Amino acid sequence: MKGDKNVDFQALKDIANKLRIDSIVATNASKSGHPTSCASMAEIMSVLFFHTMRYKISAPRDPSADRFILSKGHAAPILYAAWAEAGLFPVEELKNLRKLTSDLEGHPTPRLNFVDVGTGSLGQGLAVAAGMAYVGKYFDQAPYRVYCLVGDGEAAEGSIWEALHFASHYKLDNLVVIFDVNRLGQSEPTSLQHQMDVYAARLKSFGFHTLVVDGHDVTELVKSLDEAASVGGKPTAIVAKTYKGRGFPGIEDKENWHGKALGADGDKIIKHLQSQIKNASITLKPQPPLAEAPKVHISDITLSSPPAYKKGEMVATRLAYGTGLKKIADTNLRVIAMDGDTKNSTFSDKLRNAYPDRYIECFIAEQTLVGAATGAACRDRAVVFASTFAAFFTRTFDQIRMGAISQSNINLAGSHCGVSIGEDGPSQMGLEDLALFRAVPTATVFYPSDAVSTERAVELAANTRGICYLRTSRPNTAVLYDNDTVFKVGEAKVVRSGAADRVLLIGAGVTLHAALAAAAALAQEGVEARVLDPFTIKPLDEAAVKKHAKAVGGRVVVVEDHYQAGGLGEAVLSALALERDVVTAHLFVREVPRSGAPDELLDKYGVSAPHVAGAARALLKL
Amino acid sequence: MKGDKNVDFQALKDIANKLRIDSIVATNASKSGHPTSCASMAEIMSVLFFHTMRYKISAPRDPSADRFILSKGHAAPILYAAWAEAGLFPVEELKNLRKLTSDLEGHPTPRLNFVDVGTGSLGQGLAVAAGMAYVGKYFDQAPYRVYCLVGDGEAAEGSIWEALHFASHYKLDNLVVIFDVNRLGQSEPTSLQHQMDVYAARLKSFGFHTLVVDGHDVTELVKSLDEAASVGGKPTAIVAKTYKGRGFPGIEDKENWHGKALGADGDKIIKHLQSQIKNASITLKPQPPLAEAPKVHISDITLSSPPAYKKGEMVATRLAYGTGLKKIADTNLRVIAMDGDTKNSTFSDKLRNAYPDRYIECFIAEQTLVGAATGAACRDRAVVFASTFAAFFTRTFDQIRMGAISQSNINLAGSHCGVSIGEDGPSQMGLEDLALFRAVPTATVFYPSDAVSTERAVELAANTRGICYLRTSRPNTAVLYDNDTVFKVGEAKVVRSGAADRVLLIGAGVTLHAALAAAAALAQEGVEARVLDPFTIKPLDEAAVKKHAKAVGGRVVVVEDHYQAGGLGEAVLSALALERDVVTAHLFVREVPRSGAPDELLDKYGVSAPHVAGAARALLKL
Repeated sequence: MKGDKNVDFQALKDIANKLRIDSIVATNASKSGHPTSCASMAEIMSVLFFHTMRYKISAPRDPSADRFILSKGHAAPILYAAWAEAGLFPVEELKNLRKLTSDLEGHPTPRLNFVDVGTGSLGQGLAVAAGMAYVGKYFDQAPYRVYCLVGDGEAAEGSIWEALHFASHYKLDNLVVIFDVNRLGQSEPTSLQHQMDVYAARLKSFGFHTLVVDGHDVTELVKSLDEAASVGGKPTAIVAKTYKGRGFPGIEDKENWHGKALGADGDKIIKHLQSQIKNASITLKPQPPLAEAPKVHISDITLSSPPAYKKGEMVATRLAYGTGLKKIADTNLRVIAMDGDTKNSTFSDKLRNAYPDRYIECFIAEQTLVGAATGAACRDRAVVFASTFAAFFTRTFDQIRMGAISQSNINLAGSHCGVSIGEDGPSQMGLEDLALFRAVPTATVFYPSDAVSTERAVELAANTRGICYLRTSRPNTAVLYDNDTVFKVGEAKVVRSGAADRVLLIGAGVTLHAALAAAAALAQEGVEARVLDPFTIKPLDEAAVKKHAKAVGGRVVVVEDHYQAGGLGEAVLSALALERDVVTAHLFVREVPRSGAPDELLDKYGVSAPHVAGAARALLKL
Repeated sequence: MKGDKNVDFQALKDIANKLRIDSIVATNASKSGHPTSCASMAEIMSVLFFHTMRYKISAPRDPSADRFILSKGHAAPILYAAWAEAGLFPVEELKNLRKLTSDLEGHPTPRLNFVDVGTGSLGQGLAVAAGMAYVGKYFDQAPYRVYCLVGDGEAAEGSIWEALHFASHYKLDNLVVIFDVNRLGQSEPTSLQHQMDVYAARLKSFGFHTLVVDGHDVTELVKSLDEAASVGGKPTAIVAKTYKGRGFPGIEDKENWHGKALGADGDKIIKHLQSQIKNASITLKPQPPLAEAPKVHISDITLSSPPAYKKGEMVATRLAYGTGLKKIADTNLRVIAMDGDTKNSTFSDKLRNAYPDRYIECFIAEQTLVGAATGAACRDRAVVFASTFAAFFTRTFDQIRMGAISQSNINLAGSHCGVSIGEDGPSQMGLEDLALFRAVPTATVFYPSDAVSTERAVELAANTRGICYLRTSRPNTAVLYDNDTVFKVGEAKVVRSGAADRVLLIGAGVTLHAALAAAAALAQEGVEARVLDPFTIKPLDEAAVKKHAKAVGGRVVVVEDHYQAGGLGEAVLSALALERDVVTAHLFVREVPRSGAPDELLDKYGVSAPHVAGAARALLKL
């Protein structure tokens, strides 16, 4: 703990007011933004950035430096102001806030070199911070610390409470959460307003070392943050009582000032704030990191041994996922797995059984699963594979969406896709996961159809930046490929073809096998069909789709164990949008399915081999 | 409170063991399911169904009856067993569990007449129960009570803590949550195992009257549930210490028995359980409801006055949403609005300002927003409109997905779609919401393009069953339609046409206006374009799309303020999948956008009028 005697409290107060002024100037220049949300946290930012945190202006995202996550991303101007006042860029640049030509966006994104993840969808920052803290404590074993600032409005989000539980369960004593309890939400006061005792009781019961402070008193903030550094075995929560618009006369603690630039009132308020500052030219420099974080290597990851299957052998792709995951973990110490209490179904337990220290159990808390994965992957500290049932990634769509904005580099594996899971019924069936992941601009979507290609998909995902999604299936399916087959992102495989082909069948997972069976049945009738395995749905091998569609005379049947919208079928239709003379029959699950045996369901919902053959026959009659 | 003297505790014990036996028999017949998860809650179910709850076997979903939500849906067999033992259907039918021919699915769905909502995606039941309790207390003002059983594994879900906060904030003293703390998750023990004191402290801090009980002691359960009925001003939480597989010798409290039928061990265990039963022929009948719930009328809802705009007037569709919402609330007392602290942006505050008692503020907790809306709409008690930014419905995709399984009848309105929101940046832009809602089988998706059609969309949504989604925009756009224009679900409008049209332009919201501007520009060059307003994206007016595409010579430009996958463009491509001789250019947002002025962004990301005109010109050269 640092001695209070050496702290220049007046300087911290002055900087807080400078940050307030900067926030007003920036939002007035952009005529929008959230200056009152900045004002409530000015002292917190001043103390964090100019007393507590250890970092380098020369390398804002240095792996050794303390991390800061602004979960209430709408307070972006004061984050930008803090870095400007610390010397990273000229304060004058803050006037470019929210302009198309500037990276100083309305909410922070990693286009800025001092931002780790995009925030602005509320309640997400803490899980990310917890993932960073987990890596710092258990993998890096480095002294850097993680600070997360949470707004009181967003404290209503369940994702905050999931992440709090995760943080205390894993004893993340390198994590400090600061709640900016400024009493006012966007459209009315928060539900708890200034009931500091309720916040304190909740946080204490969630396993945090909990301190309630006056969030505008730099002395209390310094003391509490120093104390946090000395607490072992549990994370610290600092609950700061603050006022929205603090220091803005006539606006402080008033409703109807959320998300509004001060406009004409700004000058008078800036003058008032300037009058509070003792030394307008004060600058403080951050302290450097205590130690270097270890160097890590996360590229060129390979399977420890090639796939070893017999063609025709029946293996579920979810099982091959686990096998592949364990094999890449063999060759790289920073490959880690996370799961939401489904590891014995997704087979992520293959990694855990081999390397228990490199597995993070997130229990039944999928938002934390994805959020903490995002945090763990930041600053290239780890190659993370997070898995659960495909259906349950819908719980985390907002986190995944924000992961694209965050330039996040994570791998997500969803098992139990489609009606082919059988008896468990629709609540457990992933039937919209392809729509979800195809709608993520930075995503690569693997949908392997046998064990060989699944192991290779795992290997490719580990080496592909952005968000990779692997869709795996529950039933056993036949191995289709030789063990030495080479797979590439965006490269489809023709798995059946001949010169006389008159229709192209496209499927993936269980429906590729349905397509192959349909082709065999059609051949009995003298109708030859070509069958394509897309391997990746995004990017789809559009050239192959077009080429083979034309080669067979412009007849395509695409079949998927997924609803109509946004999946393989519409990806194929997008690929063919500008092609004349191609017709496409799309087979998909048309209604909410029910429980039953897998084969019964595939047939009842129209995505089995007889349906594929029927669709092909119908196309040939068009 | 009931006198304990009249309770036949031995009967309750016997029924608990009968429910255990039923659960074993059913899961053994289906060779899958979760008998150990049923066994831990057998006494809870016995006491709830045969002592505490007031309901009618003759009308399981009677509006006057107590509600029971099984949040841990995988324990479905014991729910089915309870209704069978109560006399709703023959116990023998339980052997049809999980068969395609039976509604006794792997997880409960409302295909069964005693189930209100589908469960099985964990952590969702409590928000639904809270929505029911809110309606019971504040709208119905009826004495029926709501019971929700939550598993300890799913208590890790943030959605549970959101809903707990909602329930205590609104003083839902007609709600009882029972936690079945059986210590074991699917793949390992839960994070808190049997730390009953931690659960109790958390629940108490969240504002619940909290009781810790032995969940296998029917006397304690009876006492605590009777006590709950006497608590005013706050909901009650009963934290029941239980054992997974209770009463199954060799299996009780053991790992690796999640989700497994007992198989060959079953007979021995059934014999053991039978030996515990004193009176095998015991039956108990539920007590009837205390009073009738009020009759409500929720059909044939109309605007109180027709739209009243001038053509060309600039009005944001989000504002017209608020206006329409208030107008239908004028004519029906059961129209209610909910929002997640964005009511002054979505304009749901129009209803709240007129009818404060019919507005439910959910604060920044979108999962609860959708979950409680689902609950409020159950048993046709209310016509619910829940709104937030379109982007933030991604946080609730799992709730919406389950809403389809639940046959839920709710209306969701997402404002601030697309890059047209401008300076706030990508975290606030709904760019994947159409993909989300199109992937919901029971959804109707409205995407109105002016104020007149928006008011009519609100009116139609109120009268359309299933999940209705309304996508509204932030910028002001011109009124296009006469106030007396009639709109229908699935019926597109041609907003510009002529005999010489050579290309069809399809847009919605701001991009319909871009298409109209493009058509005007093309006309200057002598190229006539037809422009189509789809009005609903799901169902899309496929006949109109095909007809007009052919009429203009097979050239279509579709433009949307959304990412590529799953939106308007792919809906159009799906409609045209079987048409030869039609080519479609699809304009969409191709990357994660940034902050900037709305018009700058629409142009930068390729969905403005000049881009539409350019795409049309390119098609004409093909």
